[in-house]
Amino acid sequence: TDRAAEFGRWKAQCLGRADLSRKGSVDEGAAGLVQLLNGREQYFTTSSCAGRIVLLDGGINGFEVQKQNCCWLLVTHKPCVKDDVIAALKKANGDAILKFEPLVLHVQCRQLQDAQILHSVAIDSGFRNSGITVGKRGKTMLAVRSTHGLEVPLSHKGKLMVTEEYIDFLLKIANQKMEENKKRIERFYNCLQHALEKETITNSHAKEKIKDKNNSSYTHKKKRNPEAACGKCITEENAKECENDDDLGMSVTIFPEDY
Amino acid sequence: TDRAAEFGRWKAQCLGRADLSRKGSVDEGAAGLVQLLNGREQYFTTSSCAGRIVLLDGGINGFEVQKQNCCWLLVTHKPCVKDDVIAALKKANGDAILKFEPLVLHVQCRQLQDAQILHSVAIDSGFRNSGITVGKRGKTMLAVRSTHGLEVPLSHKGKLMVTEEYIDFLLKIANQKMEENKKRIERFYNCLQHALEKETITNSHAKEKIKDKNNSSYTHKKKRNPEAACGKCITEENAKECENDDDLGMSVTIFPEDY
Repeated sequence: TDRAAEFGRWKAQCLGRADLSRKGSVDEGAAGLVQLLNGREQYFTTSSCAGRIVLLDGGINGFEVQKQNCCWLLVTHKPCVKDDVIAALKKANGDAILKFEPLVLHVQCRQLQDAQILHSVAIDSGFRNSGITVGKRGKTMLAVRSTHGLEVPLSHKGKLMVTEEYIDFLLKIANQKMEENKKRIERFYNCLQHALEKETITNSHAKEKIKDKNNSSYTHKKKRNPEAACGKCITEENAKECENDDDLGMSVTIFPEDY
Repeated sequence: TDRAAEFGRWKAQCLGRADLSRKGSVDEGAAGLVQLLNGREQYFTTSSCAGRIVLLDGGINGFEVQKQNCCWLLVTHKPCVKDDVIAALKKANGDAILKFEPLVLHVQCRQLQDAQILHSVAIDSGFRNSGITVGKRGKTMLAVRSTHGLEVPLSHKGKLMVTEEYIDFLLKIANQKMEENKKRIERFYNCLQHALEKETITNSHAKEKIKDKNNSSYTHKKKRNPEAACGKCITEENAKECENDDDLGMSVTIFPEDY
């Protein structure tokens, strides 16, 4: 179809372009996932960050941190020790904030159905704040996001507001979150592989049946069930944390999940 | 259509049910928005939280906070003072965490197009982590989420890890975020009203044209442009913070926004 061809052209164009990030390359921790997605005709990634600990110096003119006037004192995709943060904090003259940012991935999808499969896998792997965006002209993106963050103000106008002991304590938590994030990425990779294999099998079965029966309605009967495939690869079920959006503290209506 | 009728039945059923949240009612700060949405046939809200400061006692058996073994020491939808938090912290015997959680709203939408309009308004109002979910049988939800959070570990095994001065500093930031969240909700409300009015006008024009020309293709030519309507009501343009997903730190490809 025209739409599929247009998607293919976009994909070739985007993947052919230079990487415009500060770093200039895909993070190691996300590389497998990015490769797996870009290897399938129905997907391509437009941005990715595997997860990182960041120390920002921001909000020099008030609390609100603006992108334009905040600067990175430290960025690491690996576990982090107290001394690194303390050294970096010496350069702060505004309000320094330590953050742990889990995986963020933006994936352009050929059609809504492709986004739905990926979304379902992302949610099941623990990336519960993921969501689809559909543009005015039909551009379909999935943003993969987690609830699993950390955002801690450390200094005010250059003055450290916490003890070194606290920074040590905080980094243990941040490193643990990084470890958990890594597990979720692995889970996502495995679940996605299962879901895509399953889809390929059912797709080719569907095509055979079309040949046999010469009945095009079969293409719409593809059975897509990433959760079932996922059941095999989920080892831990700690995705439902306190950060749960559907926490009972919210005004909430329960309805059957299958609708 | 069948689908619209099914949506209508669901809506009546869900809104007729008891509110199952701990609180049992819609937060004051979200009530206007919830009312506006539920008053339109194409939407209904399934859960909402206007934004709150929460002190959790969690992670007694390790760092990972599980929903089942975490308890709320303090929840407030209003600005919060140091003494409240310090009093609540006395009851902590695990790892207490202070969080600011901005507005979260789940809205079921009649069709994808309705979700797209709402999504666009949400993003333009500063709720940049919003996203659409489409279920297997077509249930279409928009989750309205912000990047504008705070998550700060305060104690470890019941022992306070920060000073009272720090708690005071932290609450100023949390209260400021609550204030900003309130502004965004107002902006969301105003933008949504504009977008829905505009839609109603273009819809009724479209219907008139159908009558005139007896040409049903006109219904697909509705001009939907919430951003233009939004332009009028956005006073501050501080939505693009450091928390930006598309931060240059990520591996990123830029492409035209209009696609």
